[in-house]
Amino acid sequence: MAFSNRVVIGGNLTSKWAPWHASSQPSVGKLKNVLHCHKRSSDSLLSTTMSNDLKSKFMQVYDQLKSELIHDPAFEFDDVSRQWVDKMIDYNVPGGKMFRGLSVVESYQLLKGEELADGEVFLACALGWCIEWLQAYFLVLDDIIDDSHIRRGHPCWFRLPEVGMVAVNDAILLRSHIPRILKKHFSGKAYYVNLLDLFNETFKRYRGEMIDAITTLVGEKDLSKYSLSLNRQITQYKCSYYSCYLPFACALLMLGENLDDHAQVKDIVVEMGIYAQVQDDYLDTFGDPNVVGKIGTDIENFKCSWLVAKALELSNEEQKKILSKNYGIKDPVKVANVKKLYHTLNLEGVYQDYENKTREELIKSIDVLPNKAVQAVLRSFLKKLFKRRK
Amino acid sequence: MAFSNRVVIGGNLTSKWAPWHASSQPSVGKLKNVLHCHKRSSDSLLSTTMSNDLKSKFMQVYDQLKSELIHDPAFEFDDVSRQWVDKMIDYNVPGGKMFRGLSVVESYQLLKGEELADGEVFLACALGWCIEWLQAYFLVLDDIIDDSHIRRGHPCWFRLPEVGMVAVNDAILLRSHIPRILKKHFSGKAYYVNLLDLFNETFKRYRGEMIDAITTLVGEKDLSKYSLSLNRQITQYKCSYYSCYLPFACALLMLGENLDDHAQVKDIVVEMGIYAQVQDDYLDTFGDPNVVGKIGTDIENFKCSWLVAKALELSNEEQKKILSKNYGIKDPVKVANVKKLYHTLNLEGVYQDYENKTREELIKSIDVLPNKAVQAVLRSFLKKLFKRRK
Repeated sequence: MAFSNRVVIGGNLTSKWAPWHASSQPSVGKLKNVLHCHKRSSDSLLSTTMSNDLKSKFMQVYDQLKSELIHDPAFEFDDVSRQWVDKMIDYNVPGGKMFRGLSVVESYQLLKGEELADGEVFLACALGWCIEWLQAYFLVLDDIIDDSHIRRGHPCWFRLPEVGMVAVNDAILLRSHIPRILKKHFSGKAYYVNLLDLFNETFKRYRGEMIDAITTLVGEKDLSKYSLSLNRQITQYKCSYYSCYLPFACALLMLGENLDDHAQVKDIVVEMGIYAQVQDDYLDTFGDPNVVGKIGTDIENFKCSWLVAKALELSNEEQKKILSKNYGIKDPVKVANVKKLYHTLNLEGVYQDYENKTREELIKSIDVLPNKAVQAVLRSFLKKLFKRRK
Repeated sequence: MAFSNRVVIGGNLTSKWAPWHASSQPSVGKLKNVLHCHKRSSDSLLSTTMSNDLKSKFMQVYDQLKSELIHDPAFEFDDVSRQWVDKMIDYNVPGGKMFRGLSVVESYQLLKGEELADGEVFLACALGWCIEWLQAYFLVLDDIIDDSHIRRGHPCWFRLPEVGMVAVNDAILLRSHIPRILKKHFSGKAYYVNLLDLFNETFKRYRGEMIDAITTLVGEKDLSKYSLSLNRQITQYKCSYYSCYLPFACALLMLGENLDDHAQVKDIVVEMGIYAQVQDDYLDTFGDPNVVGKIGTDIENFKCSWLVAKALELSNEEQKKILSKNYGIKDPVKVANVKKLYHTLNLEGVYQDYENKTREELIKSIDVLPNKAVQAVLRSFLKKLFKRRK
């Protein structure tokens, strides 16, 4: 029969399905005490020791949440579908830097400024995982839209022969896990409805994807429509909101804060998110694929990245013609021609200047904020972003 | 340059993009009075006249909601992206039977049993459209997962050359419109959080998709795993919840009811949804494609449809071998062999018996319900379903 070589999911496939898993088994850490030790130095980045303990605790919460989801009575899973979802979550949800998820716990700790009860740590971790689940959902779909091959050093989920376009369904399932987590652990909280609203707001991310898709795909491949302002617009929606604002907003809600009272901070956080996306654009072309975990495709995919927008700004007419002839074509020679022009224009140096200048400006904006704890959170974000290599 | 034949979206493309639109322009109807006229006969299906007026009003609300969405300041649309979303909504959201959406208004009217204020009609229509938006989101993604060609008599959205896999992004946008509509028009209502929960519950639909996908795609193509019980399990989650329960639940929430108090009705509504999906399975093979609006592909796609499950139940060993050799293969000859066997087994007659028997059982369940208005709503649902041809 046709498809007889398809794989039945089952058994212990951890090594194949979740290569990150072996090195990230949670150990029992006393996060509560660790957090307590560090609360006095809230102005500095949480130490490596704490980060490791936090990661252990964070992974423990992951195991619990995943177990709850695959045993959720609302689904009435049979063994085959339970195993499928189990492996699908393992393949797609952890394995990243977990920057967004861990930021919820760290932000909450810094903002609260006192020892966290175990229950609070759990809830902050759970919200952190909601963001990681959201990220997984985005990435599974993005890889389909962009026809990508590699993600986090492994084949994209939809590239696995036994998955294919069922990945779309799996992505929707990942998205649906978020309200399940929220309902189970937060439905009694006063801020429950605000959490639902907040996660519903993540649609803004797809506003960025849309501009990205439309500029990339619709109409002639005309570089003259690309600019730093368009790149900023894409970036602001595509990445900034959910990468940087969402963790911070989750922490604020847990503290009982009204998000409308923190508009100024939101602006700074969104700027940080834009900076992070410019970094992504830079790493797509200049990063080490072994470190970044994927091979950049912005040039061949005609993306309105920060690099091409900057290159257009700096190019003379002759150089613009080179870009026009070589950008957005799946041909290694043409991609190399674009990279060569980037070098000629010293985009690496231009980027370093941008990065330093942006950091300085962000520090200034943070310094004038009235709340020291909020300052500490933002400095922690910034420190993680600055000069990152993946 | 590559892709130079791509189409720039813009101008008046209504005839191409939304062929349903010309015949469904809203006229100014006084739904309030119309509804009032009919409230005394709440036990009967709303009349054709009323349905037409209701449809007009419903389309008016569509125009308003769409306009609000494409002018939503949260998106900061430029002209190109606004036009894209405008056309994308027009192409995908209306154009179906609108059974689910209209049911919210009709159910609310029947349950309330008194004249509706204009504002109430608007809100019920808005919730109806949220369900239609949800349906559009499902269909855009389903067509990608199933690699379909035709939907509602037109090419599937992702089949348009200027769309492709950007359809995934568009689907996510459609899903994101629902919380925007809810937030704008319902955030001040006591039942707002219940509405958010209700629409978040629609993940269950993808539980059905998943069993469907896993049974279809994972492992050997082994018909022995297919049964009426598996078909029922797929159906219950894939269609029943959002097609039948959701409109009813929206109406109940608008009335300030607690959904937990209506578990018995929920069971009946879910049974109706299963019946509706069995009809879909039947129409996929035996329906007129010109009426149904799509060409069935269940046989070649190895779907665990009601028909194949029933055929397996009724087949002798020889007939099972025919099914096994011909089912699930994209070859017109093999598809015809399966259809021939269906005829031999008199599946059309068996289906008619199933339909009549199911209707009788549902009527019995409805008759014993204590609330006459609830009875009327369920009879209205049932009357629309019985013997439908598309």
